[in-house]
Amino acid sequence: MNNAPIGIFDSGLGGLTALKAVRELLPNEDLVYFGDTARVPYGNRDKETLIGYVRDDINVLLRYGVKAVVIACNTADSMGRKEVAPEFDIPVIGVVEPAAKKAAQTTENGVIGVISTAATAKSGVYPALIPQFRPDAKVISEPTPLLVPLIEGGRIRRGDKVMTELLKEYLAPLQAEGIDTLVLGCTHYPMLTDIISDIVPDLRLINSGAAVVELLKETLESNGLLADRKEQGSVRYFVSASPESFAATGGLFIGEDISDAVKEIAI
Amino acid sequence: MNNAPIGIFDSGLGGLTALKAVRELLPNEDLVYFGDTARVPYGNRDKETLIGYVRDDINVLLRYGVKAVVIACNTADSMGRKEVAPEFDIPVIGVVEPAAKKAAQTTENGVIGVISTAATAKSGVYPALIPQFRPDAKVISEPTPLLVPLIEGGRIRRGDKVMTELLKEYLAPLQAEGIDTLVLGCTHYPMLTDIISDIVPDLRLINSGAAVVELLKETLESNGLLADRKEQGSVRYFVSASPESFAATGGLFIGEDISDAVKEIAI
Repeated sequence: MNNAPIGIFDSGLGGLTALKAVRELLPNEDLVYFGDTARVPYGNRDKETLIGYVRDDINVLLRYGVKAVVIACNTADSMGRKEVAPEFDIPVIGVVEPAAKKAAQTTENGVIGVISTAATAKSGVYPALIPQFRPDAKVISEPTPLLVPLIEGGRIRRGDKVMTELLKEYLAPLQAEGIDTLVLGCTHYPMLTDIISDIVPDLRLINSGAAVVELLKETLESNGLLADRKEQGSVRYFVSASPESFAATGGLFIGEDISDAVKEIAI
Repeated sequence: MNNAPIGIFDSGLGGLTALKAVRELLPNEDLVYFGDTARVPYGNRDKETLIGYVRDDINVLLRYGVKAVVIACNTADSMGRKEVAPEFDIPVIGVVEPAAKKAAQTTENGVIGVISTAATAKSGVYPALIPQFRPDAKVISEPTPLLVPLIEGGRIRRGDKVMTELLKEYLAPLQAEGIDTLVLGCTHYPMLTDIISDIVPDLRLINSGAAVVELLKETLESNGLLADRKEQGSVRYFVSASPESFAATGGLFIGEDISDAVKEIAI
């Protein structure tokens, strides 16, 4: 048993989709969230840069004594986790593998689309991983590099014309391939669930932020790290820039007022 | 007379609009361009961060022995030039003041719109400066924070549905005020000239990148810094990340193949 907090980080708002899922499954855990808003977006950075960011972000969370880290960012996970995790003596898990597994379990016809940042697409991680869980799967990966800037800019309202137009363009080649399942291969993308469902009603959507919580629970259990408190755990939010803007959009997203809970810190 | 190069910097591609204008007016000058593509976009960063970026970017250019610096980025100019320029012993000029002057000279009805990043809009620099050149001017400033990510993503093709939809939204409140002149208050925006003209045909557009060249020429002249060579000056391009992507979109924009001329350097 260990009552230290769990650390969760992302380039910005996206990891809140993981945080939300962690709070539901593990309500008694204390959580520390870090959004690297000074360096968002991550999705067009190169590998060397991203490895440095992942190291920095874990070190930020370690200042708060975290017992485990969730990389709640597909880009950071696919480009930097394997390289950086061995440097630390706490568990560091990522969102990609659980999402790949979930997609393999969810598809019926075996045709799976993946939308992600340019960096995640370039890493080839989803087309490599999904067939390990379902060998006959056909995986079509599509980089969708403009979604994060638009989401961080608050364009997540159902019916938003700009976002709808962009998603129609991005999804058309995947629809043409006959996908029945779509991996939201960036933790920002679950904020687009309504808009995507309006464009393609029958698609099964895989939320990479939510998929990681089972792996987190197993990891904590197997390392004897679950909290043993009875009361609700606390949540603290830290960002590297623009705390007001993070609180405004993030609060909308997780459905509560977090304006007093977000603090700006130096990386 | 001084044959050292002129330095020009921007967060990414935008400053190429200034570079293009400088090459036309001062063809015999050597130019060194720096695009800070590792830290683009600048437009949503806070003032303290931007002051640090401006200092870094000037220091990058000084490695190449520049005799003067053009801050070809409205955000960097409005948030950091006054603070940082006195630290250096070469002239450091920016794009904002020449664009404000040009807008004041161009409008007929005195109603001027300004589109810019969130940071430039927050600085209030255009509504403060334009009336110094035309006291009765009415200036309406509109932050348009998603344009830079979309432009850096290459969405500058005439007829692009996503960009057209976004610009229609951004321009509607300015059209409602009856503007006859629009300041493109970010050096990326001249890449949108065609799309804007398709939406609002009669608008007079002020290119903040191009407007700075007269000030640059005067500054070089008054400091005895003009080059005295007869041949065409050289141009070198440096970026802090992703040189291929910069060369591809930048080359399209300035209308020549620059793929061999772009080098990645550390800040």
